[in-house]
Amino acid sequence: MSKTTHISELATPVAVIDEDVMDANIKVVQRYFDEIGRPFRPHIKTHKIPSLARKQVAAGAVGITCQKVSEAEIFADAGFHDIFITFNMLGTDRLARLKALNNRVDLQVVADNDVVVDGLADVFTADEPLMVLVECDTGAGRNGVQSPEDAVKLAERIASKPGLVFVGLMTYPKPNTEDAVEAFFSQTVSMLKSKGIHCPVLSHGGSPSLLDSHLVKSATEHRAGTYIFNDRSMVRAGLCDYDDCAMHVIATVVSRPTETRAVLDSGSKALTSDLLGFPDHGYIVEYPDASITSLSEEHAVVDLSKCSEKPKVGERIRIIPNHTCVVTNLFDRLVFHKGGVVSGIEPVAARGCVT
Amino acid sequence: MSKTTHISELATPVAVIDEDVMDANIKVVQRYFDEIGRPFRPHIKTHKIPSLARKQVAAGAVGITCQKVSEAEIFADAGFHDIFITFNMLGTDRLARLKALNNRVDLQVVADNDVVVDGLADVFTADEPLMVLVECDTGAGRNGVQSPEDAVKLAERIASKPGLVFVGLMTYPKPNTEDAVEAFFSQTVSMLKSKGIHCPVLSHGGSPSLLDSHLVKSATEHRAGTYIFNDRSMVRAGLCDYDDCAMHVIATVVSRPTETRAVLDSGSKALTSDLLGFPDHGYIVEYPDASITSLSEEHAVVDLSKCSEKPKVGERIRIIPNHTCVVTNLFDRLVFHKGGVVSGIEPVAARGCVT
Repeated sequence: MSKTTHISELATPVAVIDEDVMDANIKVVQRYFDEIGRPFRPHIKTHKIPSLARKQVAAGAVGITCQKVSEAEIFADAGFHDIFITFNMLGTDRLARLKALNNRVDLQVVADNDVVVDGLADVFTADEPLMVLVECDTGAGRNGVQSPEDAVKLAERIASKPGLVFVGLMTYPKPNTEDAVEAFFSQTVSMLKSKGIHCPVLSHGGSPSLLDSHLVKSATEHRAGTYIFNDRSMVRAGLCDYDDCAMHVIATVVSRPTETRAVLDSGSKALTSDLLGFPDHGYIVEYPDASITSLSEEHAVVDLSKCSEKPKVGERIRIIPNHTCVVTNLFDRLVFHKGGVVSGIEPVAARGCVT
Repeated sequence: MSKTTHISELATPVAVIDEDVMDANIKVVQRYFDEIGRPFRPHIKTHKIPSLARKQVAAGAVGITCQKVSEAEIFADAGFHDIFITFNMLGTDRLARLKALNNRVDLQVVADNDVVVDGLADVFTADEPLMVLVECDTGAGRNGVQSPEDAVKLAERIASKPGLVFVGLMTYPKPNTEDAVEAFFSQTVSMLKSKGIHCPVLSHGGSPSLLDSHLVKSATEHRAGTYIFNDRSMVRAGLCDYDDCAMHVIATVVSRPTETRAVLDSGSKALTSDLLGFPDHGYIVEYPDASITSLSEEHAVVDLSKCSEKPKVGERIRIIPNHTCVVTNLFDRLVFHKGGVVSGIEPVAARGCVT
């Protein structure tokens, strides 16, 4: 007789991943990129686990995206050799680690200002040069040069440094702004061309408008992370249904202080406080009319006033988080299952990598 | 020549603790409780580090407060023998661990409903009984029985179980509601007395109105965590100044995309998204007029429009977080310093303990 563990036996709160749903998500998105003939470079921030990135590469991904050197080091150790770190690199310690990493994998980074470019140029040399892309702010209002003119200036500066190789442009776009991205990319490329600067890579990204990537015709690759697990924000974006969400946080109803209030043992230490534009903290599968109105570290307070059926103390419920990536970062391990039967457990190898 | 490390050399983002400020915080709060003659039981959730709890106990604390069994296990392993877990306990695994813990330390837990009491009663026996308090909702709207009458009923149920000992009442109050707490406690005690039920412990708690604990005259102890580091919420509550905040998240300005925008490398993976009622994500010591308007996982976007002086790319700044406890939970280690010189580093032993 073979013994199995069911996810209903695990101590709560616990983050579980439905392997079949995850595998289907990997397949569906890779198929889309195969169909439009665009290389896909998944962002590991959603899972932070090398074996899952291996599945993504096995399905056809050309490499991976990381946000920090410390993440990239872990994935390099795990055998990945094509890594794009989409973050400005500054600081003595970080640059030394970046240089060591560039000696052993195919590494690309971004820059959006002179200080970052000059810092990189001080450390890298022509014998082991670093590939650098210019990050462009195409409307998201985060990092990035503000205009094609500024992109060209920075590209020229990169190209002038012996230890750096200018390879292209990168953007993390505002959702549903494909025209703006296309305009920024194509104008910059055209200006660069007139100056004789080659710009082979145009890296587009983001999850919320993932399946509209083809609308940015000039892009040469796409980066996205969330799709592997999906979450409530991806359902809202129309990219998937709740059934396509591979991650659930299983929680226990620990209290029913009033007729309309339940309290769960999944607080901000399990769900994070990331609202991501939602008015409440996650979608409860069994009680879709319930609303997680507030979180403290270990408590989730649930308003049941719109529920006809109400949960009892001791009952276990499943939450689809607003934002899956930040939940992964809170757990030391993710538990995998097939149809509820535990199929594996993986340490979140790059959890907490902030540097 | 002795070599030292300055916090300005550490890779960012990093959470640092000013030891002198922390030690002063421990002293000031313990002195208050000594003066009002009230036992103090610090909550370890703020630091999650046994050596810091040891300082709190050395200063005069009577024991510690934890929120989860997994936290209590770590502190029991570290030698603490008087532990109060202020959370409803449910689930086979958790109850088995609780029983093992009760065999080796003086343990108290809470309950606010019959299911929890009956679950405890099924596991504990008269030879090693468990001490149980009734959690009372005195206005905070989280866990807790809703009235003194319900508190009495639950106390009677606890007292009727051979493996449980009813020892008192506990509340996590809404700030500045001392009168409501006092009324709830005293009415319940009086009703219990008329039934011949002894109620030795009245455990009051919370940080925001910490120094008003004496207003709850009947309370026999106070629980609070945040005071050891302090944070922006404690400054807002009037309990301390920014100079009394021991924790800073040091971040680097990685981008200045526009005249009024800076981007820091301390995103929600360093600061969390806990607004705690604030409109923005932390207080920047060097630029008090700046506002951290949004966070993604690795980026903090800062609005500089009200700043006369503006930071440059590469500059390091210090952030006092809205909520210090949740920041601790994100970092594997906290770095301690005296006047900027690193004096120690401690693993956050109970980080990520959600079960």
